[in-house]
Amino acid sequence: MADFGLIGLAVMGQNLVLNVADHGFSAVVFNRTVSKVDHFLANEAKGKNIKGAHSIEEFVSKLSRPRKIMLLVKAGKPVDYIIEELLPLLDKGDIIIDGGNSHFPDTNRRYEELKEKGIHFVGSGVSGGEEGARWGPSLMPGGDESAWPAIKPIFQAIAAKSDGEPCCDWVGPAGAGHFVKMVHNGIEYGDMQLICEVYDLLKRLAGFKDAEISEVFAKWNKGVLDSFLIEITRDILKKDDKDGVPLVEKILDKAGQKGTGKWTAVNALDLGQPVTLIGEAVFARCLSALKEERTRASKVLPGPQIPKDAVKDKQQFVDDLEQALYASKIISYAQGFMLIREAGKDYGWKLNNPAIALMWRGGCIIRSAFLGEITKAFRQNPDLENLLFHNFFTQAVTKAQDGWRRIVGSATSYGVPTPALSTALAFYDGYRSERLPANLLQAQRDYFGAHTFRVLPEYASKELPAGQDIHFNWTGHGGNVSASTYQV
Amino acid sequence: MADFGLIGLAVMGQNLVLNVADHGFSAVVFNRTVSKVDHFLANEAKGKNIKGAHSIEEFVSKLSRPRKIMLLVKAGKPVDYIIEELLPLLDKGDIIIDGGNSHFPDTNRRYEELKEKGIHFVGSGVSGGEEGARWGPSLMPGGDESAWPAIKPIFQAIAAKSDGEPCCDWVGPAGAGHFVKMVHNGIEYGDMQLICEVYDLLKRLAGFKDAEISEVFAKWNKGVLDSFLIEITRDILKKDDKDGVPLVEKILDKAGQKGTGKWTAVNALDLGQPVTLIGEAVFARCLSALKEERTRASKVLPGPQIPKDAVKDKQQFVDDLEQALYASKIISYAQGFMLIREAGKDYGWKLNNPAIALMWRGGCIIRSAFLGEITKAFRQNPDLENLLFHNFFTQAVTKAQDGWRRIVGSATSYGVPTPALSTALAFYDGYRSERLPANLLQAQRDYFGAHTFRVLPEYASKELPAGQDIHFNWTGHGGNVSASTYQV
Repeated sequence: MADFGLIGLAVMGQNLVLNVADHGFSAVVFNRTVSKVDHFLANEAKGKNIKGAHSIEEFVSKLSRPRKIMLLVKAGKPVDYIIEELLPLLDKGDIIIDGGNSHFPDTNRRYEELKEKGIHFVGSGVSGGEEGARWGPSLMPGGDESAWPAIKPIFQAIAAKSDGEPCCDWVGPAGAGHFVKMVHNGIEYGDMQLICEVYDLLKRLAGFKDAEISEVFAKWNKGVLDSFLIEITRDILKKDDKDGVPLVEKILDKAGQKGTGKWTAVNALDLGQPVTLIGEAVFARCLSALKEERTRASKVLPGPQIPKDAVKDKQQFVDDLEQALYASKIISYAQGFMLIREAGKDYGWKLNNPAIALMWRGGCIIRSAFLGEITKAFRQNPDLENLLFHNFFTQAVTKAQDGWRRIVGSATSYGVPTPALSTALAFYDGYRSERLPANLLQAQRDYFGAHTFRVLPEYASKELPAGQDIHFNWTGHGGNVSASTYQV
Repeated sequence: MADFGLIGLAVMGQNLVLNVADHGFSAVVFNRTVSKVDHFLANEAKGKNIKGAHSIEEFVSKLSRPRKIMLLVKAGKPVDYIIEELLPLLDKGDIIIDGGNSHFPDTNRRYEELKEKGIHFVGSGVSGGEEGARWGPSLMPGGDESAWPAIKPIFQAIAAKSDGEPCCDWVGPAGAGHFVKMVHNGIEYGDMQLICEVYDLLKRLAGFKDAEISEVFAKWNKGVLDSFLIEITRDILKKDDKDGVPLVEKILDKAGQKGTGKWTAVNALDLGQPVTLIGEAVFARCLSALKEERTRASKVLPGPQIPKDAVKDKQQFVDDLEQALYASKIISYAQGFMLIREAGKDYGWKLNNPAIALMWRGGCIIRSAFLGEITKAFRQNPDLENLLFHNFFTQAVTKAQDGWRRIVGSATSYGVPTPALSTALAFYDGYRSERLPANLLQAQRDYFGAHTFRVLPEYASKELPAGQDIHFNWTGHGGNVSASTYQV
């Protein structure tokens, strides 16, 4: 009888189950296209403690109880279909783990449906791509906590390790695991967009060749920016094609997306959290997709000439860029954790910030030395209101900000688009503003829509009482009753 | 028998039905809280051709056929409740018009449900606040087009006029009217945020007093920025409270929202359109709401000192600001029409761009001289791919861009947050970029997730064929089959 069952022998499933077997657990696998099972057993899984099944009944019959069945299939309907097929074959207390990129509201629903049937449902984020799945992914399980003791030994064994600690811990109830994976992916969108903007600036303003840019990333990868995405960017940029033109320069500049970054931005809007950097990163992909329209626009819409000597001190420019990238990353993660905090409140989930940071520390696409600092910060103060309030990050943005402003300033004057670097700076300046111009906005809303406003405590008076919704008759005519008073 | 029935005597309903009566149509009104009917008839409606009803049955019985019944009630469940109550009392061919701020997917649903029952359903955007409703709103009706001949005379009579033309035309099928109203509201969010940023810069960088800023807006209101929102900003800023402190300075800087701006941003993400300015405007309201957190952050997070002479040439600064505001507005409207174009394609709606621009030209919150230019542009070329391609707007952004860049540059270096002005510029620079750095992003996605890429046509070869999804084995080990190949 096998310890672990896996359904779905796509690239992630194959690699993950090999990882499970390598850690001393026996496994059984099934795939709808059954020929894949045989092919996998005869090749990649040869000699491993992995059995195959040719039917879902056979698959279930080969698992020890409580059965631990992980699905790594395409998110959406396929997950529901397989759960439906499994249900009549399972016993109470069995565990189904959805390891796909499911949208967390679906996981919420499945968790509730299966709870009623006595099946423990876990929605687990899995990140790290095929390499991660094979050698140590980041795993973010959430859902029915009674499943955790049974799957914990396997999950923590196969997960990536950071300073000996597994990058896998229990996230929270219902869809919390997939929610945290969604935010991870949103942050990944942001990190990638930031790197692209920096590469673009090095190319267009400093005139660097890809090999030189690769050197810059190589150096950065030894400093505060040390991370998987910086590392692969270094490698990508030095990959010459046979004709001497770097392969990356031959790639069409239309970015695809699988929707998880979009989900994060939509969720931020729903929860009213200003997660601007991920929002801009998603929109940047949308704009990139309009390649033909951009090409036509490039012939019509003028911009500044970039002089050859736009960057006078190249070392200074590179150092400024490092600081701009670092500070913007800090903002993006601060925004991500603002979203997580609000989701915790709104959905009634107790979420463990230091554990989340540690899960992202290794194994996943956004893994970085920097996440070690975030883990430390949240361990020192799990209720830290905002990353920016922790001394380490306060100091980092303080140190970074002159260079950061110079970079955004140069991009602005020379016409290189830096939506993510710019929005990060705008957020920083907005966040540290005790007063924002929203007072005028409230006046406008009250003027044309009688939407009311509140008064600053220091200006409270009998006519303008504190803590009350006030409507002012700005025009001197028309109604003087607020919109809310007038609801049917 | 009355020509027109109205349910919902809130501020908008009262004003709209008075407007109807003033244009020679007889009306009957009903309200769930019946005392409001009597109060309205005895006061505001006294002497007008408006009758009341004390029950929904009486209301329906007093209408000539086909009955034209407009609902101006709170969006959401109340609309469904009233439709349910009305249904048994109506005859085939009767018309129900929802004039509230309904979300367009709800209007789609109601349109389909009522179509089956032979009732013509119209979802109409109504904008202009109470003043607009009373003296000429912008009306954006869509839904069942067979209702249009019956309601057109009333709608076009009560609507605002622009150069003699009514700011009301048929928008399109199903929820198209409410969709266009939603985009209107999103653009309104953007316009308001831009004005707030400009006010903030005048205050924080140039050290202007509110009365001086009011003068600036007064002057702008005579130029290209001539619009309702600029006009009311002028008036708001000069409203001194009794103690000499401008009222606007006493207002709490926490912006509220009713969700329609958010809907637009979410829709933009869903349709994959880079409507970045509205996105930032919504997020700016979210950030403003975190007043207490911002206050704490302001004590901890440093920023640049703003010197007294930050602005050396004040006239130049004001002129630059005008250009920055104007150019950003052009970007925002260009983005809004990109969204409308995509919705037309995606939802299979034939939308009439010049009519939409004309409907926004007068009556509504975003009414402006500028929308006259947009109307002209779309009349010249209804299939104009993007506003920025029309000569008038190409020239306007060309003229504006030096000042625009100086403004964003100053805000960046002095630490005044301008998320909307900045994102508009980043969009402009991205849109006019034939090449964006998304090639690197595609390489990264292929590196860690085997997501594949395409090749630029000029670099197509036997190994890198054009028009095909290519996966490259970047690491030299691991799988060399793309993610998509591996779906279960």
